[in-house]
Amino acid sequence: MSKQKIAILGAGPSGLAQLRAFEAARRAGVENLPEIVCYEKQNDIGGMWNYTWRTGQDKNGEPVHGSMYRYLWSNGPKECLEFSDYSFDEHFGRAIPSYPPRAVLKDYIMGRIDKQAILKYIRFECPVRWVEYDESREKFSVTVMNHKTGEQETDEFDYVVVATGHFSTPNMPYFDGVEQFPGRVLHAHDFRDALEFEGKNLLLVGASYSAEDIASQCYKYGAKSVTISYRSNALGFEWPEGVEEKPLLTHLEGDVGHFIDGTTRQFDAIIMCTGYLFNFPFLPDNLRLKTHNCLYPDNLYKGMFFEGHDRLIYLGMQDQYFTFNMFDAQAWYARDVILNRIQLPEVAQRRADIDGWLQRYQQTDSCNDAIDFQAGYIRELVNATDYPDFPVEKQAALLKEWLLDKQENIMAFREKTYRSTITGTLATELPAAWLDIKDDTFEGFMSLEFVEQKASA
Amino acid sequence: MSKQKIAILGAGPSGLAQLRAFEAARRAGVENLPEIVCYEKQNDIGGMWNYTWRTGQDKNGEPVHGSMYRYLWSNGPKECLEFSDYSFDEHFGRAIPSYPPRAVLKDYIMGRIDKQAILKYIRFECPVRWVEYDESREKFSVTVMNHKTGEQETDEFDYVVVATGHFSTPNMPYFDGVEQFPGRVLHAHDFRDALEFEGKNLLLVGASYSAEDIASQCYKYGAKSVTISYRSNALGFEWPEGVEEKPLLTHLEGDVGHFIDGTTRQFDAIIMCTGYLFNFPFLPDNLRLKTHNCLYPDNLYKGMFFEGHDRLIYLGMQDQYFTFNMFDAQAWYARDVILNRIQLPEVAQRRADIDGWLQRYQQTDSCNDAIDFQAGYIRELVNATDYPDFPVEKQAALLKEWLLDKQENIMAFREKTYRSTITGTLATELPAAWLDIKDDTFEGFMSLEFVEQKASA
Repeated sequence: MSKQKIAILGAGPSGLAQLRAFEAARRAGVENLPEIVCYEKQNDIGGMWNYTWRTGQDKNGEPVHGSMYRYLWSNGPKECLEFSDYSFDEHFGRAIPSYPPRAVLKDYIMGRIDKQAILKYIRFECPVRWVEYDESREKFSVTVMNHKTGEQETDEFDYVVVATGHFSTPNMPYFDGVEQFPGRVLHAHDFRDALEFEGKNLLLVGASYSAEDIASQCYKYGAKSVTISYRSNALGFEWPEGVEEKPLLTHLEGDVGHFIDGTTRQFDAIIMCTGYLFNFPFLPDNLRLKTHNCLYPDNLYKGMFFEGHDRLIYLGMQDQYFTFNMFDAQAWYARDVILNRIQLPEVAQRRADIDGWLQRYQQTDSCNDAIDFQAGYIRELVNATDYPDFPVEKQAALLKEWLLDKQENIMAFREKTYRSTITGTLATELPAAWLDIKDDTFEGFMSLEFVEQKASA
Repeated sequence: MSKQKIAILGAGPSGLAQLRAFEAARRAGVENLPEIVCYEKQNDIGGMWNYTWRTGQDKNGEPVHGSMYRYLWSNGPKECLEFSDYSFDEHFGRAIPSYPPRAVLKDYIMGRIDKQAILKYIRFECPVRWVEYDESREKFSVTVMNHKTGEQETDEFDYVVVATGHFSTPNMPYFDGVEQFPGRVLHAHDFRDALEFEGKNLLLVGASYSAEDIASQCYKYGAKSVTISYRSNALGFEWPEGVEEKPLLTHLEGDVGHFIDGTTRQFDAIIMCTGYLFNFPFLPDNLRLKTHNCLYPDNLYKGMFFEGHDRLIYLGMQDQYFTFNMFDAQAWYARDVILNRIQLPEVAQRRADIDGWLQRYQQTDSCNDAIDFQAGYIRELVNATDYPDFPVEKQAALLKEWLLDKQENIMAFREKTYRSTITGTLATELPAAWLDIKDDTFEGFMSLEFVEQKASA
């Protein structure tokens, strides 16, 4: 049998997890590993975790992938994404607070990646243009645009791993009158710098993580007022003065927003925090996952294997309480299927398995349920492979704590500390209120005098 | 012989011209016309001329096509784009000024389109995903994403006409320090409303039409200052106080721009007026035009027929002094080739013809030369078909006048009037200074009391 060939689309957290999974096998002495090519649109690894000042299109005319903004701090405790084989203690050499800024967290995530081993698989600035599957030859043909050479390249593969993310293509609803609004209207995807909105009356449409975090940021950096408009449920936090929630925006008249409760308010700018579209413009209908953002997309066996195409694997397509270690658990499982260590069951059994998970998912009716649901999913994957075991359930318990801490004080929850589920180390405290720490650089954060705790936790 | 089939990609000015060319033949009684399908990404005809409030991606997650902004007025005299078979007099019923706002000009351009006849060819919200050419069968296969159904469609064609424009994908250069600039950084493509920059110190990078016009707009709508940074040549207009030109930006430090002449200045926002990339992500290498913005792209016979692929036709890929009637002249010529009324010469002759034009183009060394060059190109096309003859050379003369009028007063040239080369009608004058007319709506403009002129011109 000739060597199998795998295309990994994307070198963000999921794609890197897949590369690491195979690299781990190689180090463990597994022979005859498949040949791997990883195509990446950007010119670096890290996917969404690369901050870019660009919006709209990138230097090659490709849609900008990143939705990160300046001053972004982790919105969940770092202890919920800690790797069992690479602890925070090992990376930082000392205890740090539980909610670090983006650059610090990225430093950790990337810290365990052996770049020398990984980079040789990756083709940068090579967005995928088109994928086709030849039924008779059982091969995928993948065409990419190599922007470094200005020429396209087509290659054939036995497996395709889609790891292109789903928080990059804005979902941007229309509201009557928005085309006449005399100020900036943008999607959260294009939000880069809260300082742009200093002194302004800001309308955020949407009531999920983007709205919650951008509201906090803009408050922190001096917006005059922030109004959050929700469709179904308010975020419900006790917001400080200057931040309020209103029900659904119905329309705009000039710079005035009208809400479904009959109230109105003047705004200087509008940020649509209205989520993202699943977008795979490089995939034909028969290979394309069609779903919305949820914890268990249909048509994916074990949340990965595309129904009807055993060798088409989607990573990280779930909505996420768990993130990096979930991607790892998936990648190790996918690797073991590709290496024939795990046999995929028959089609009907796979369908039954999907249905089982969908049923379980339907029965969740709280955030705590949802956290347990995702923990259960990860537990199943981890148990099936040699991925280093990690305390999924303990991290789930931390996530539930985190929800309460946000409810308690949305502007101060980032001052909370949690105990590592891996090393037992208790995080240190920020030396000042989160609202008062405005430097989000790696150097700035790491030079703060973190406060050791005596408390139990 | 079975009916030929043509795919037209795009229903903007060029694509519409192609549809009209065939429709004109049909009305003239030509039988056995080819079957036509026109695929359009947007949900309306008009291409670039549709203003959209959206930036980045559209509602379907496709890159936004439009680069139009509010308060955009024609930056050239309308008399330079008048159609000989559809005069301004016929459309408006009275004389209007020479520089109307976008909505008024669009109304004219669209006015002569018989929507009932044209719309039946167009498939809206169908961006093209991938095109392939089968050498043996001599057929193009075109795959589009039909966003109305959520499914892709593939069809086969004998000809493909690429009319997707080349002013949609921003060319966005990097400057050292831009990632730390604490304010909005955008490309002209995403510029929508000058009011956003009221009271601000604005840096425009670039020295072509976008910089010239956005500077004027932002000045008109109250920017505190506008600085235009040029690489090679300044625009060189006598700018009013508050607008200045500086040589190339070298880097940014915080909110301070450093220029190559050693000067510095503080800015609140940066608009990159740095042009556009030719971008055809749906075309494989062997079908893709590779060029930059110029008056005569290489590899296109008669500026249209792709070298090496007789049946692949590009419309409107030139930089433009002439616009709509040039697209028409091209579309009529392309139609006549498809209908076999015009025979394409042998490959070598075509190459010689391209070389001849490229040589002529190289000899142009002023804007006036360039205008004459493009007029000569259009003249050749018009003479070869039954497209209604129009006074190309007289319109060229008006373009040269326009250049002088801009030099005379960049903030007032839109108050100038010109005589129609078609009807002889002299345009009316604006009732006030252009700087003082801030309503750019169709209704607002058309309800102004235009001033009849007694002057000769």
